[in-house]
Amino acid sequence: MAKEITSKNENYSQWYNDIVIKAGLADYSAVRGCMVIKPYGYAIWEKIQRQLDAMFKATGHQNAYFPLFIPKSFFSKEASHVEGFAKECAIVTHYRLKNDPNGNGVIVDPEAELEEELIVRPTSETIIWNTYRNWIQSYRDLPILINQWANVVRWEMRTRLFLRTTEFLWQEGHTAHETMEEAVEETLKMVHVYADFAEKWMGMPVLIGTKSEGERFAGAIDTYCIEALMQDGKALQAGTSHFLGQNFAKAFDVKFATKDGNMDYVWATSWGVSTRLMGALVMAHSDDNGLVLPPKLAPIQVAFVPIYKNDDELAKVSQRIVELKAMLDAKGISTLFDNRDTVKPGFKFAECELKGYPIRIAIGPKDIEKGTAEVARRDTLTKEFVSQENLVEYVVNLLDNIQDNIYRKALEFREKNTFSVDSYEEFKKVLDEKGGFVMAHWDGTRETEDLIKEETKATIRLIPNDGKKEEGKCIVTGKPSAQRVVFARAY
Amino acid sequence: MAKEITSKNENYSQWYNDIVIKAGLADYSAVRGCMVIKPYGYAIWEKIQRQLDAMFKATGHQNAYFPLFIPKSFFSKEASHVEGFAKECAIVTHYRLKNDPNGNGVIVDPEAELEEELIVRPTSETIIWNTYRNWIQSYRDLPILINQWANVVRWEMRTRLFLRTTEFLWQEGHTAHETMEEAVEETLKMVHVYADFAEKWMGMPVLIGTKSEGERFAGAIDTYCIEALMQDGKALQAGTSHFLGQNFAKAFDVKFATKDGNMDYVWATSWGVSTRLMGALVMAHSDDNGLVLPPKLAPIQVAFVPIYKNDDELAKVSQRIVELKAMLDAKGISTLFDNRDTVKPGFKFAECELKGYPIRIAIGPKDIEKGTAEVARRDTLTKEFVSQENLVEYVVNLLDNIQDNIYRKALEFREKNTFSVDSYEEFKKVLDEKGGFVMAHWDGTRETEDLIKEETKATIRLIPNDGKKEEGKCIVTGKPSAQRVVFARAY
Repeated sequence: MAKEITSKNENYSQWYNDIVIKAGLADYSAVRGCMVIKPYGYAIWEKIQRQLDAMFKATGHQNAYFPLFIPKSFFSKEASHVEGFAKECAIVTHYRLKNDPNGNGVIVDPEAELEEELIVRPTSETIIWNTYRNWIQSYRDLPILINQWANVVRWEMRTRLFLRTTEFLWQEGHTAHETMEEAVEETLKMVHVYADFAEKWMGMPVLIGTKSEGERFAGAIDTYCIEALMQDGKALQAGTSHFLGQNFAKAFDVKFATKDGNMDYVWATSWGVSTRLMGALVMAHSDDNGLVLPPKLAPIQVAFVPIYKNDDELAKVSQRIVELKAMLDAKGISTLFDNRDTVKPGFKFAECELKGYPIRIAIGPKDIEKGTAEVARRDTLTKEFVSQENLVEYVVNLLDNIQDNIYRKALEFREKNTFSVDSYEEFKKVLDEKGGFVMAHWDGTRETEDLIKEETKATIRLIPNDGKKEEGKCIVTGKPSAQRVVFARAY
Repeated sequence: MAKEITSKNENYSQWYNDIVIKAGLADYSAVRGCMVIKPYGYAIWEKIQRQLDAMFKATGHQNAYFPLFIPKSFFSKEASHVEGFAKECAIVTHYRLKNDPNGNGVIVDPEAELEEELIVRPTSETIIWNTYRNWIQSYRDLPILINQWANVVRWEMRTRLFLRTTEFLWQEGHTAHETMEEAVEETLKMVHVYADFAEKWMGMPVLIGTKSEGERFAGAIDTYCIEALMQDGKALQAGTSHFLGQNFAKAFDVKFATKDGNMDYVWATSWGVSTRLMGALVMAHSDDNGLVLPPKLAPIQVAFVPIYKNDDELAKVSQRIVELKAMLDAKGISTLFDNRDTVKPGFKFAECELKGYPIRIAIGPKDIEKGTAEVARRDTLTKEFVSQENLVEYVVNLLDNIQDNIYRKALEFREKNTFSVDSYEEFKKVLDEKGGFVMAHWDGTRETEDLIKEETKATIRLIPNDGKKEEGKCIVTGKPSAQRVVFARAY
């Protein structure tokens, strides 16, 4: 099976697609740009959801659900939102089909035209702030800390499974606050929740920072983001958290009575991550044998493969595996006993690698005699014989080790592929020859940002939040700059 | 607060709406027929989802996700499906907005018209069976046991919060099988999962049976359902499970190589429950003081209310409540300490009743002295003083008692409101004067079913599956009948 995967070095993009399709994560659908998330892919997404949801609740948020459709006129209310956004979207114009009088199936009933078209939500700020107007009268109604798990639609011309699809699944937090300080604090808190999740659960190191004007969310005052580096040296934005100021409150007239008896507009944030994280997860760790998953997000953490020549051997081996499996299950480890008799162990081994099960345990008649098991780890592709007596403890530790190792490896890769450059020539050379994150001085203007993007296809991924100030000169204009920013070509 | 709820006897429909809105379950939205599910309502829905999802997984199902949009032509492929369904739906015809040249916001870009219109899924049989064609080649690929949690849209002219909304949330199971027997078994298994959930978790007794031709799902050979009786004597269909035969496999050309080397069409089932269950939950148990929730689905099971006259008393009472709360939390009971100092205990008590917290515990200075607590149960509105020492055990038992009592009460109500009638006159009289489930003989024809519906607005809710045969004569035509069927007016 694994042989069918295109090598990463040969064709990175095809390698990615091969893994997504062949590991059974997702599939193309009959609808342009929309994907089918298959059970194995969805099981990973469920683990992502479960953990993020717990983190949102631990930070005081509640879930709710708002309509899929947004009246067209809502998009015109926040000027920069409509300018920078939402032009490419799915538009509902009719509400009834009828039988074709010519007998060719069904047609749209021209009499069932909507008075005002409905937009399938590309993001929900407008419909939510229109609702918040009814929920907020005084400071006592604040803060509102709400998250929504939903599907959204952005009409994309060029799509890639998980990374860019017309419909995708995501969560969007929408919070309302009394003060600017509180809203800014919330924005920062949530980008750090995302960073924690990416690093501790996905094993994916990320940079945290703010977006430049050219990359900011339409309608936001500030966009904070996390950025990860993929194995082809391209950056991937993995999550964003927006400080929206009073923009949406003004657009939808959401005022509140303040503690001191005045009226003021409410302060807003929004933040989201999507099924794009699935694409990041695949690209961050996988290899030419298939998917590599961090144990904390792997639907199956340990797969058992029996080795046998006859029914008698199978019976003995199976009995032992069932016992060991039960011991791991009892520790909360998710296991699979691959006892199919239609395929050989070699096929099963390749499938374990393709699907990225963190640990594979093979047990044969010799192991029964010796009280051992062959334990293979997916991340390093190394094997070791372990005594069955210590197997549970060994596996528990190994899962932690693999989680750590995957992160460390990705971090080393990022460090090796982060470059500081001081001239535009060097900038272009590094981008073309090495890719990666390129740290350079920039004069802070939209013009320079746009010029660099046009000439090199590199964008400012973020202005780092770690605050390392360093005087320098813009690589393009030579104007003064107070700190380096992070450029990269990006997904 | 509670006073604002219309009495159930005065206006049942308004009573229902008052509870949904005032308990904070849902709200109307700016989009006709679409609702906003508010945090408290969504927290109940999450509990429903969590439990059903566990039951689906325990019966071997996996989750996946299919596109929101379905090409229009797909609906014409299964003849009875398109005839009985899907005419009233949201139709996407364009994929881009543009700035209005006259400066009035945005308009639909006439150049961005889709070649084939897309329907926002009203149910997903068509897109899923179109996908299964690629996944199924041989009997080795079967069964496929997939469930999807999703939003669906059916354009409704008259909507009611939770009960009938244009967009709603649901789960839809779609399974593919080698044999008819296996598919029928699956259909039955899932209707029993629904019945178990309704009775053990929602505390709502249900009848299980099959639908008559007039009420069957468009495209199904047989529709199994669970039906519950609401407090106004109307029936509510709470879940359906369809045996689809080979209809969709034939429509989408899904064949497989059988074990004996032939080709055959795949056998199908589909089954679903929706946010309609929220409406059923409200109507099954609530009273004029507000919501009554079964403890197993209550987001807050126990609310503590402090009673005090001054800060000193508050400090003492709070300290004890925090200790007791921690002990309940440790048992996995979800608790709330309502320590707001802006409202009086009486207001809090009313709110506890409105929101349906199963248990309310009030503790004041006298309780601290005596080591007692005042425990009020929502279902019976009775109170008792309990020693703090035994409080945890008492609460654990009481939650079970309330769960049982709610079910028993609803069952008694149903039994009292189930009538056997033997003439059409009596049938109409019972319907008009009492409502409820009316058991009557029917000749099994579509004509009689339609006539009764037209004349009385009562429909056949189901043909009971318990198999109690009883010879009789149709109340309308006098033709022979082998068993009584269940009629009712329904939501």
